[in-house]
Parts: sequence; structure tokens; C-alpha cells
Amino acid sequence: MPDPEQGKAVAALDRAHVFHSWSAQDQIAPLPVAGAAGSRFWDYEGNSYLDFASQLVYTNIGHQHPKVVAAIQEQAAKLCTIAPAFANDKRAEAAELITNHAPQGLNRVFFTNGGADAIENAVRMARVHTGRPKVMTAYRSYHGNTATAITMTGDPRRWANESAGHRDGNVLKFFGPYLYRSAFYASTEAQESERALAHLEQQIQLEGPNTIAAIVLETVVGTNGILIPPPGYLAGIRALCDRYGILYIADEVMAGFGRTGTWFAVDNWNVTPDLIAFAKGVNSGYVPLGGVIVSDHVHDTFRNRAFPGGLTYSGHPLACAAAVATIKTMEEEGIVEHAAWLGENVLGPGLRELAEKHQSVGEVRGLGAFWALDLVKDRETREMFVPYAAAGADAAPMNAVMAEAKKHGVWPMPHFNRLQITPPLNLTEDEAREGLAGIDAALTVADSYL
Amino acid sequence: MPDPEQGKAVAALDRAHVFHSWSAQDQIAPLPVAGAAGSRFWDYEGNSYLDFASQLVYTNIGHQHPKVVAAIQEQAAKLCTIAPAFANDKRAEAAELITNHAPQGLNRVFFTNGGADAIENAVRMARVHTGRPKVMTAYRSYHGNTATAITMTGDPRRWANESAGHRDGNVLKFFGPYLYRSAFYASTEAQESERALAHLEQQIQLEGPNTIAAIVLETVVGTNGILIPPPGYLAGIRALCDRYGILYIADEVMAGFGRTGTWFAVDNWNVTPDLIAFAKGVNSGYVPLGGVIVSDHVHDTFRNRAFPGGLTYSGHPLACAAAVATIKTMEEEGIVEHAAWLGENVLGPGLRELAEKHQSVGEVRGLGAFWALDLVKDRETREMFVPYAAAGADAAPMNAVMAEAKKHGVWPMPHFNRLQITPPLNLTEDEAREGLAGIDAALTVADSYL
Ligand SMILES: Cc1ncc(COP(=O)(O)O)c(C=O)c1O
Ligand SMILES: Cc1ncc(COP(=O)(O)O)c(C=O)c1O
Repeated sequence: MPDPEQGKAVAALDRAHVFHSWSAQDQIAPLPVAGAAGSRFWDYEGNSYLDFASQLVYTNIGHQHPKVVAAIQEQAAKLCTIAPAFANDKRAEAAELITNHAPQGLNRVFFTNGGADAIENAVRMARVHTGRPKVMTAYRSYHGNTATAITMTGDPRRWANESAGHRDGNVLKFFGPYLYRSAFYASTEAQESERALAHLEQQIQLEGPNTIAAIVLETVVGTNGILIPPPGYLAGIRALCDRYGILYIADEVMAGFGRTGTWFAVDNWNVTPDLIAFAKGVNSGYVPLGGVIVSDHVHDTFRNRAFPGGLTYSGHPLACAAAVATIKTMEEEGIVEHAAWLGENVLGPGLRELAEKHQSVGEVRGLGAFWALDLVKDRETREMFVPYAAAGADAAPMNAVMAEAKKHGVWPMPHFNRLQITPPLNLTEDEAREGLAGIDAALTVADSYL
Repeated sequence: MPDPEQGKAVAALDRAHVFHSWSAQDQIAPLPVAGAAGSRFWDYEGNSYLDFASQLVYTNIGHQHPKVVAAIQEQAAKLCTIAPAFANDKRAEAAELITNHAPQGLNRVFFTNGGADAIENAVRMARVHTGRPKVMTAYRSYHGNTATAITMTGDPRRWANESAGHRDGNVLKFFGPYLYRSAFYASTEAQESERALAHLEQQIQLEGPNTIAAIVLETVVGTNGILIPPPGYLAGIRALCDRYGILYIADEVMAGFGRTGTWFAVDNWNVTPDLIAFAKGVNSGYVPLGGVIVSDHVHDTFRNRAFPGGLTYSGHPLACAAAVATIKTMEEEGIVEHAAWLGENVLGPGLRELAEKHQSVGEVRGLGAFWALDLVKDRETREMFVPYAAAGADAAPMNAVMAEAKKHGVWPMPHFNRLQITPPLNLTEDEAREGLAGIDAALTVADSYL
């Protein structure tokens, strides 16, 4: 039932009291959402949207999945919360299910509330385990908003924090592979991979290998472009880490739990990190949850030495019950396999078709339910459709593209010059085609700027 | 129904897969908890405990309050989650209710998942607002485990992090008031207050006032001793901050939401901080939630300038629905007033009586449902019952005291040489007396070490 008056009341109360993330508070007009189910959400005016962003790429199982809702209700009736120092059935079961899907040799889970604290704790483990302070992360990355995580972040969200002194001094950056805009003058994937690794090794040597605790990488870079590692790159990272006694931390906060069509994104390249940070898809964000999957050798370090980290809600029973239900449902309903199928048979071909048709599309990248359109002003020069970190008037062309998508009832995720398409993993083929039609319309607007 | 076999299975699965906070993983044997209600929780063997710790001092409303459970179930059926960029009815209502109880002039809420990220974001706001990098915090404090929050922490949990390089270089420490173990050779509360302020002012001048963004204080120091600020101290902090253009951030993660017998602990001294960090009691931890209450002048800074922080689950609808129900229930059932009554009429007098009886009690401190017994080897010298940061054999006497309390069905919170008593705010008088009897027995064990 549309109820515009109620929507206005919610918007007014929001503007009176809610301080929003990453925003100038007087320059936003947050859309009041009245409800959501499956791949759609709707406002109070009667407009509904196909959720081609999965919110912030986390409702992997769609909205309001009845099995997960029921599990939350049951656990709420039984035991909402208990402190981390106790043992709890759902906490233990969630940890077991998560490690069942992780690469061999990663058998323990340290639970957190979200992605940023997962990253902080993974880095903490690496620093204590190695006795080395420094952490290397890639430009074009996002790792969260707490002090170490935001310093690790390789996108403009870091800048204002560093200017203000909110910064971990033991973090440094390197260039990852990105063939379409190569930092290494490469022209093939093999060359990009090889040169990125050689460049990184040289940087390790110049920094001093004995000072570096960890290399942290989004397995597939998410918000910053769905950058898929070229063949050999992640195996090369593993080898570099082994050579220099550095831990390899995979940030799978966004890429994990089926997003790429495998349980963990590293499964696509058969590499085994020392630590995996996760959040989002683990329970589709129905209850805040994140964590670190810990390899046996890192766990050994903390068998008889206290781990110097913790948090009040570590292993929260309600959040873990939602994870248990989510993972079991993903297993039962073949949702991860469906995401792989969707990428290969519908989203990939569909987006490539749109790229042929629309001059504004420079490159299509993706796998599973994880796709980006790299928009350009000119296919030859590859000049970005709007500049890196564009805001205000500079961002207007992308805003027009987004507005057109929404007009057609589709809600993708825009980031600088990119339109990213990251729907729930259990999106149906019909929904996918409906959404692609909306993206088609939006790209016509993009073309008009060329 | 006791079910020891099930308990053993939970314990085994926990040890196989769950990595616990702040622990050497092979040196713990987490008790499997089977259930909880009101002021009690129980294991699978049939033992039940009066929760004199409120877990980690967060189940202010007790376990499984039916009104909050029902609210979680209803919201789960309606809308578990929506991204921070949208407006949501429960998020807006929670923010309104929270600001209704905050001091005048604090009208916005930035939501986080817990206490550490609340602190990180409060500090971020202060740094950007003032354009200054440094943050001053007190020895004997806890502020969380992410990089800035753990560096701000003035207890030994910081040490191993700093050794490992997990550290924000723009944080520094000062001495707060603690008359019983005065750092200022004071003999009265007035003197302790005056000297602590003079000492801090001198430190500000030597650090350079223009380099300091914020002073961050637990209004009543929690884990590190239920240290109650002497009269005039917090007003003096407010005045110092005003004099030097520094923001005053109150960490009310533990002290807020009724713990001290007022909605916020600052209400006891009528001071108005610029930012208040909260978590725990806001929804009794039934769903992870924390946040920052923002004053109008800090909010003004971010009206037309982007706030450089955010997180995926900011303003999580399920967590906010639990907060709405918790706050309304606390209002309806007079729970905050009850906590004040309990402190004045039952816990305070009862603990002081125990102190008369037991030589091991050096000092009783507290208010509301927030109490500590500072245990000593000798009342004259005030030598601590076990040393600061005691572990292993050094901690054995406190372990024996705790064991005796548990034997009597009471579960307080031990910290170094202190036994802290922080029950749910709606503890009944009978439960309080039952618990005090258990503490009495435990103190007899303490006395035996003297
Ligand atoms: C790859 C990655 N790491 C970490 C994070 C931080 O997660 P959170 O927002 O839950 O702190 C995100 C959030 O988008 C992410 O995409
Ligand atoms: C005063 C205070 N601040 C911050 C925190 C950190 O909260 P969290 O464990 O939710 O990160 C705590 C936790 O005990 C606390 O007591």
C-alpha cells in the first residue's frame, strides 16, 4: 500500500536526527524505503526497484528470505546475546559452516561486527604473528573506516582522514594489476600479472622484507572497479609472501560468500591465504556480522599467547544464527552455483551485448553476480566518463545515468565513472533481463554525453 | 532441562572452530551457556548464575526481555536490513528517542555496530571539525580494539598492540582523578579534582593546545575501576575544552543508558559534551549497535562538507528496532529510576556493609547499578590484592575469589584486583540480596589470603 504521507514523516524524522555515512548532511535527501523482498525494494510512493546493488553488495540471498527471517525469530526467542567468553551453540555452528567452505587449513573463526573490524583484527593477528609492523595494500581498494582499515583503503575516502590525522602510520600502498588502465605499460594479461608482481617484489625489497607483516588484497576488487586478478597474479602473491615470510590476507568482505560464483573468491584461482576477512554475504547483513578465518599456523601463535583483540559482540548469537540459516539455505538452494550460472549465461553475455551497442562502455568486467561497466568519454583514449573522485558538477553525467536507471526501476551502484551491477545471487533470469533493459536505457543517456 | 551431553558437544565444537577475544586459545575452557532470562543465565549441567556482570556490562534490561524480543521478531518479519543511504522508520525513531534523553543541543545520531567504531567516528568528527590531529585520553580506561580506540585505551590491552605496531600515533595519555590511589598526593576529593585539572591544563599547554582535537573520557570509568569523577572535575574538563578550542567527547559506551541511575552518566554532573559515544545499553546488546550523539555545532561542520566515515551496517533496522523497544521499555517500566534506587538503597548499603566485615575490601565505589570493590592486601598500605595486569599464578587469589562467587551462583566481573558488580538495572531487591550473599562468601575467601 503506497503511503506518501508516512514516507514524508520518515524522511522528516531522518533529516532531524540521523547523521549519514560519507555525506554532507544538507546535500542529501535519503529515499525512505517502505519494504523489500527478494530482489526488490520499494518506497512509500509506490515505486519499486530491482536491487542491482544488493544494497552495499551484501544481500547476497536477497531481501527477507523466509528461512533466514524464521531463524532470526527463533533465536530471538531463545537467546539474543551472550558474551564472547562463553561457548554458544549457534556461534560454534556458524564457525564450523564457514570453515567448511574455506580453503583447507583455515579452521578457526574470530567473529566481529562487520568488515572494518574484521580487517583490523586480521592485521592485528599478522602483526603479532610476524612481529613486524608494516602492512601493504593496493591503490584502488576499500577496507573499512576504522583507523587502520581507512589507511589501508586505496580510494579517496582515505584522503580527508589522513589530512585530519586519522591514520595508521604503518600502512603503505602498491599498484595492483588493472590491465585496462595499466600502470605497467602492459598489453596482455600475462604481462600485467608478471609486471605487477615484479614491481611489488621490488617495493618489498626497498621497504625491507623484515618490516612487512602482511599483504592485504581484495581477491576481486569490489567498490573500486570489479578488478579481476589476471592469471597467475594471486599465485604470485602467495609465492612472494612465502619467500619473504609475509602473511597473505584476503579481504573477501565483498567478494566472499558466493558473490563471484564460488564460496570464496580465492577458489577461482586455487590460492590459500593465511587469513580471510569476511562480512556482508555471510548472513546477507540481516544482523551485523563479520570476522576473520584463521589458518592453523596463525592460530598456533595464539595457543599459549593471548590474542590482544576483542569486542563486546564477538560471535553474537543472533548474528550467528542468521549466518547458519543463510549458509544452509545457500547450500540447499544451490545459490552459489546459480550465481556462477547467471554470470556466464545471462549477466556476462547481456552486458557484453550492451557494450557493443553503447559507445560509452569502455570495458565490461566481472564474474558471478559481480560486474562493472567502465564508462569512457572516448573508447580510443579510454578517458574516464567522469574524472576519478568526481563530485558536484563533475559527477553530473553519472548522476543522469543513475537517474535514468532508477526511472526504469533498476538500482545499480555507481562509483566514479563506473556502473556496477551486483544483484542478489538468487536473481532470476527474468529479473536479470528486466534489469539489463533498464541499464540499456541508462547507457543511452551516457552515450548522449559523448 | 539440563543436558550435559549437549553441553559437551557445544564446548567441543567451540574449541574446534571459535577463536576467542583477548585469550590464549589453549588456555581457556569457555562455559557453554544453554539459556538466559531476566537476571540469570544457566549452563547445560543445571547450574544457574545471577548475572552480576550483565555479561560485559551491556544487558541493562536483563536477558530476553519479552518486549524487546517481540520487537526484534516483528522487525525481522518486516525488514531486516537496508543500506545507510536510505531513510528508515526505525532508524529515525531510534535516533529521536536517543537524542530525547541526551543533553540539550545534541540532536543527531551517527550509528555504528558497537563501541570501538563509535569511538573511532567520534574522534574522526573531532579531528575534522577542529582541524587538529591529537587526542588525549586517560590512563585506566578502555575505548575499544580498533587502531585508534586501542591506542586510546589506558589499560594493558593496549600494550601488545603497540609492540606490534597496531597504533595511532596521534593519541596521548593523561592522569585522571582516582583519589584512593591519587597520582597527585591529594587527600580530599576537592583537592584531587583541582590537581587533576591543573595537571591536565599544564599538559595541554606543553603539547600545544592548537594540536589537540579532543579530550575523551569515560564519564564514569568502567572496566578499569568504576572511578567516579570528583565534584567539579567534569565541569573543569568542559571549561578547559572551551578555553582551548578542544572538543569534549564522553565515552558512555558502558556508563550510558541507565547504568549510573540516570539516562546518561553526564546527567549526574550536569555537563554537556560535544559528542557522546554509546553502545551496549542502547539495546542491551540484543542486536549489535553503537553510535555517536552529535552536537549541533559539530553537525554544522558536516552540513556542506562530507563526513569522511561510514560503515555498511550504519543504522541497521533490526538493531534500531531493538533500541526503540529497549528505550520505550526502560521509560515505561521506570528502569533507570529503579537502578538509582537500587544503588542508593540496596547495592550501596549492602556493599558497604560487606566492606566493614571484610578486611580485603579497601574501597567501595559506585552509583546506580555500577559498583566496584577495590581489594587490597593491607588496608593501611592499600597494596593491591593482586598486582596491576596480574596474570597466571599472580592472578590465582582473584581466581579463587571468582570461583567462590560462582559456587554460590553469582557471576560478578573481576578485573585485576577488583570485583565489579554491574547487574541488570531491573534486578529485584531479592535478587540483589541473594547476590550480595554470594559476594559475602567470596570475600571470605579473599580475606583468607591476607
Ligand atoms: C572489500 C571491503 N572490505 C571492507 C569493507 C568494510 O566493511 P564494513 O563497512 O562492514 O566495515 C568493505 C565495505 O564495503 C569492503 O567492500
Ligand atoms: C567505555 C567503553 N568504550 C568502548 C568500548 C568498546 O566497545 P566494543 O567492545 O563494543 O567495541 C567498551 C567495551 O567494553 C567500553 O567499556
